Amino acid sequence: MSKTYNVAVVGVTGAVGQTTLKLLAERNFPVASLKVFASQRSAGKKVTFRGEELIIEAVGPDSFEGIDIALFSAGSEQSREYAPRAVKAGAVVVDKSSAFRMEPDVPLVVPEINGAALAGHKGIVSCPNCTSIVTVMPLKPLHDAGTLRRVIATSYQAVSGAGVNGIADLEQEMRAWANGEAIKPTHFQHQIAFNVIPHIDSFAEDGYTGEETKLVNEVRKILDAPELPVSPTTVRVPVFTAHSIAVNAETETKVSVEQARRAFDAFPGLKVWDDPAQNRYPMPVEVEGKDDCYVGRIREDFSTANALNFWVVGDQLRKGAALNGIQIAEDMIKRGLI
Amino acid sequence: MSKTYNVAVVGVTGAVGQTTLKLLAERNFPVASLKVFASQRSAGKKVTFRGEELIIEAVGPDSFEGIDIALFSAGSEQSREYAPRAVKAGAVVVDKSSAFRMEPDVPLVVPEINGAALAGHKGIVSCPNCTSIVTVMPLKPLHDAGTLRRVIATSYQAVSGAGVNGIADLEQEMRAWANGEAIKPTHFQHQIAFNVIPHIDSFAEDGYTGEETKLVNEVRKILDAPELPVSPTTVRVPVFTAHSIAVNAETETKVSVEQARRAFDAFPGLKVWDDPAQNRYPMPVEVEGKDDCYVGRIREDFSTANALNFWVVGDQLRKGAALNGIQIAEDMIKRGLI
Repeated sequence: MSKTYNVAVVGVTGAVGQTTLKLLAERNFPVASLKVFASQRSAGKKVTFRGEELIIEAVGPDSFEGIDIALFSAGSEQSREYAPRAVKAGAVVVDKSSAFRMEPDVPLVVPEINGAALAGHKGIVSCPNCTSIVTVMPLKPLHDAGTLRRVIATSYQAVSGAGVNGIADLEQEMRAWANGEAIKPTHFQHQIAFNVIPHIDSFAEDGYTGEETKLVNEVRKILDAPELPVSPTTVRVPVFTAHSIAVNAETETKVSVEQARRAFDAFPGLKVWDDPAQNRYPMPVEVEGKDDCYVGRIREDFSTANALNFWVVGDQLRKGAALNGIQIAEDMIKRGLI
Repeated sequence: MSKTYNVAVVGVTGAVGQTTLKLLAERNFPVASLKVFASQRSAGKKVTFRGEELIIEAVGPDSFEGIDIALFSAGSEQSREYAPRAVKAGAVVVDKSSAFRMEPDVPLVVPEINGAALAGHKGIVSCPNCTSIVTVMPLKPLHDAGTLRRVIATSYQAVSGAGVNGIADLEQEMRAWANGEAIKPTHFQHQIAFNVIPHIDSFAEDGYTGEETKLVNEVRKILDAPELPVSPTTVRVPVFTAHSIAVNAETETKVSVEQARRAFDAFPGLKVWDDPAQNRYPMPVEVEGKDDCYVGRIREDFSTANALNFWVVGDQLRKGAALNGIQIAEDMIKRGLI
């Protein structure tokens, strides 16, 4: 019998936590036992895993005794407080918050790209931001093919990237509209129904949002290209699930559209949907619920030398968060790191 | 008494035609008489102008006798057939279709930018594509300040850019969703509710859409910069009215964020909404119904020298179409060209 593991999911009531639970079952993750944690508010409520009811516990200092793998998606504050305790108790933590991502001794991993970095872990491995993951997936094969020189990324991000409250906000605003009532935002800064909001996370002095700065820093760290010039614009759109990113990428050596298409297609976790004649290109409603990221609209950028435009879409709850987290754990098991 | 004109609106039942009618009244355009035309299908129906009922006529070869100014927004086919007849009958045609835009002897005009080009008209003046207008409005002051070197434009386009059918499609899809019914697109290639579609107009061999190629060619013609490198991505989003464009612009000489802000603010028809601390930036739901275009998120692009990122939003039925058309006519009157 192959080895199984005691697993904890922290933040199980969130959008990413719920997807994590679904994927642990879907992928037959080698679970020996599963503990599910959330805030005090959800303690005592139940979730179902493989047909079995599990009672949600409030996370606390002693929650991680005997846990081998702790999958955190409860936000940075909870991660800062409890991830070190989980490590102390002997668990490996896969953290989906931004708390530790830029710490030099914490690997920031997309397994298809830099799984090798897992070897250097000190107990915590960070999962990148959802937009960073979806953007970096096609960048890696392009980087390998022609060495990236500059990247301009412009996003169309789904409300579930902001968690269950984001989903609820879009839903209730749309129902209000359908009922002829006034639209009142409850979660986002502004109405998201029939709108786009060029503001995700908080603003810094330089005019960029946290989401935009994360994209720059995380793409650099994942690709191990610390100086790569990246220019980001991140925007919320009224889509439930799956982030889309319009990418403009310049390379040191020319990569033709055909070469890029082949490189994308050969890359694990990436698929090419690019058949304009058949109106075939990736879109959120078709990518929602899928594990892979999808690339289309691949075309030469005639405005400069050695540049391509393309469009990538990924389910940010899956590959952008929960799936990538589980893939990190699977990769660590395969590498004998857990 | 100042001069008044016999005006015809061709395509009065469309989204742009309806807005044209509204704006002629709103702006007290010097109308002596108004004729309203549409296809045979709408003939006999009525529209209201300044409290008066007008009967819609089917456009035909003899529709333009005695007309001074004909405002066309009935699509390229109708423009190709009837605009030359209107000119022959003595009218000046302001055409909002793409039919004549790239013809060398047809001025393509945004009055704030290149009204002087009107002097060369031979009877037809073209109004640029809605996305081109909203994009070029902030580009002009930036071009004047530092000479544009390269532009990357990524759009978030409202459904009313596709006319009344686009509006109806989003509405009925959203109502179906609210009623728990299946969503079936009637106008767009795919579902637009809760989705984004990276496809506007038809695809060419090079992988770009007609909308994208229009943006490149029209921005160059309006700015009189025939070689300006422009890299476009155009995307439909579930917004009713107002297009948003994320613009990355490189200039020959450095333009600071402060200089750009001042240049934008001083430019007629352009306003700066850029106060991150107050969550203030342009968005479609706030710009809908406004005449000006609004710029925000102005920030230095740290990925290359002399580049800025910014975000511009404009009501594409107003400044992007109907308003710009009427402004062309007003400018021609002022210049003594009509």
